[in-house]
Amino acid sequence: MFSIASPITSSEKQIRNKIDNKTKPVGALGQLEDIATQLALIQQSETITVSQPHLLVFAGDHGVAKHGLSIAPSEVTTQMVMNFLAGGAAINCFCRTSDMSLKVIDAGTKVEAEDHPQLIKQRLGYGTEDFSQQAAMSPDAALRGINYGAALVEKLHQDGCNLVGFGEMGIGNTSSASAIMAAILKIPADECIGRGTGIDDTQMQRKQALITRALDLHRERLDDPMQILACLGGFEIAQITGGMLKAAELKMTVLVDGFIATAAAMLATAMHPEANHYFIYCHCSEESGHQRMLQYLNATPLLDLGLRLGEGTGAALALPFIRAACEFYNNMASFDDAGVTV
Amino acid sequence: MFSIASPITSSEKQIRNKIDNKTKPVGALGQLEDIATQLALIQQSETITVSQPHLLVFAGDHGVAKHGLSIAPSEVTTQMVMNFLAGGAAINCFCRTSDMSLKVIDAGTKVEAEDHPQLIKQRLGYGTEDFSQQAAMSPDAALRGINYGAALVEKLHQDGCNLVGFGEMGIGNTSSASAIMAAILKIPADECIGRGTGIDDTQMQRKQALITRALDLHRERLDDPMQILACLGGFEIAQITGGMLKAAELKMTVLVDGFIATAAAMLATAMHPEANHYFIYCHCSEESGHQRMLQYLNATPLLDLGLRLGEGTGAALALPFIRAACEFYNNMASFDDAGVTV
Repeated sequence: MFSIASPITSSEKQIRNKIDNKTKPVGALGQLEDIATQLALIQQSETITVSQPHLLVFAGDHGVAKHGLSIAPSEVTTQMVMNFLAGGAAINCFCRTSDMSLKVIDAGTKVEAEDHPQLIKQRLGYGTEDFSQQAAMSPDAALRGINYGAALVEKLHQDGCNLVGFGEMGIGNTSSASAIMAAILKIPADECIGRGTGIDDTQMQRKQALITRALDLHRERLDDPMQILACLGGFEIAQITGGMLKAAELKMTVLVDGFIATAAAMLATAMHPEANHYFIYCHCSEESGHQRMLQYLNATPLLDLGLRLGEGTGAALALPFIRAACEFYNNMASFDDAGVTV
Repeated sequence: MFSIASPITSSEKQIRNKIDNKTKPVGALGQLEDIATQLALIQQSETITVSQPHLLVFAGDHGVAKHGLSIAPSEVTTQMVMNFLAGGAAINCFCRTSDMSLKVIDAGTKVEAEDHPQLIKQRLGYGTEDFSQQAAMSPDAALRGINYGAALVEKLHQDGCNLVGFGEMGIGNTSSASAIMAAILKIPADECIGRGTGIDDTQMQRKQALITRALDLHRERLDDPMQILACLGGFEIAQITGGMLKAAELKMTVLVDGFIATAAAMLATAMHPEANHYFIYCHCSEESGHQRMLQYLNATPLLDLGLRLGEGTGAALALPFIRAACEFYNNMASFDDAGVTV
């Protein structure tokens, strides 16, 4: 679907040498050295940059939420979209402090938000179907979602953006992400679920039962990531997956947020394994299951602040580290430059 | 020596309520909520701010380094001071990306750097004495160091700064920090030492033997933190300790960097336990021992990026989180503001 190439690695030794000659002990900047190396490989350039960084927050509702799997009703998805547009949510705060542009996308909320000059409407419906009863969406809707996300990222790229973070809002979407995780890892639902934003034991049991039922119902279609997306996914997850894949195709750096965004990254890498080279996993969410996802993706997250909010908050908070990695890679003195004894 | 009061806690419930009414699940911003609470208690204000943040990097040499406990000779301390002044070190890079002012202080290097308009000379000597043979410095020098650090912070405060980070440069200073740790925790040297910036097994054994000898030599003076500082400390550690204490007295927020800065924080809190309320522990260093220090101080570090450089790099990298915490505390909408269903 996408034409994604692994970064050319012939320059890796040269990149590592450049870093090792900076005025510091070898390896002393830890994960920032890995980030600098990753960007240098992606950008294939002497200097690495963060240019017009964007955070895209996709909102979508989930039919399965009607079973009461969340602390809040589906209407809150739309209310939070309005909050994003008014600048009042956590992700607005962190995009402001990280100097990152925020775009809000309605991927298909249950209650349609009123038009707003800052709201990008790419609606795939009024929330997905209940995946414990039928496929969450049609294969056609899943494909349209992929294309919607891809087209938006392509436009950003045309305007000079080279780094994009992905976040989401959607009541019930930890259930969808857990189901996707279970399908891709081929493990039972109970190893993939958590308390979302704070549900109780009864809701946990219900969540597990519904996901187990869904995995059984759709089992014949779960060998293909596009089918997993259609059966178990969400409109926001489809668009994030497409956006991530297009970003990788265009050699942009992708900031992956928490549990739901990582589920989209799992789908993206299941479709195109090379895409993972372009992804930076920003934080380890408090949502149980996230750590196992990250292990599967061979990822070491940058942050572990006990966040469990989504919206792209972890991605926005991680951006300063990417800028710090660029700055030391580009401008830190070498031992020769500084006249420091090796 | 200092008059340090714990922050008034009568407003803590009100602060927590304010945070819990923000448009997010309770606790979903993890450690950022703790940071916001800490700053709100320190600043006793409806809105919390980071004003003219400074990073102070103190350089000093250590007599014990002549035993070859480091990957580099003492001359490198001065070379790195020149690198700081030229803007080429890691801490310069991260202060630039974090929008933080950097001050470089010569607390007593072995080789005296030439005068430079940006260099603050507060020299206590040409490096400390070898603490495995005698006290690192006189009690008078330790006190002068405390006062030098305090005076510098007081000046920053007068100019409007309300947050200060502390970093250091000093060949051999992980040995001093390990010895301070062993003395305060009353545990053997081998539980306090690590590889610094990258020494080998032989150097490790030598480091352990020298620190063990020092702890034995000075054992009768190690019940008092000022005596620990004089016997085992460094000129940069003395000035950092004084700076931290003055900052706490002036109700400023203190960003504590890695292993050596945390040793200074241990001395500061041993002298004035209330000071710890003003300290934010920015990261967990790769230096073994640091985690145990942090546990002793009841601290949960913000970052764990595998850094082992010092200079204040962890503190500079953590500043964006402090700004993010202020922004959400001050400007994130409440459920009422945003019309979001609780």
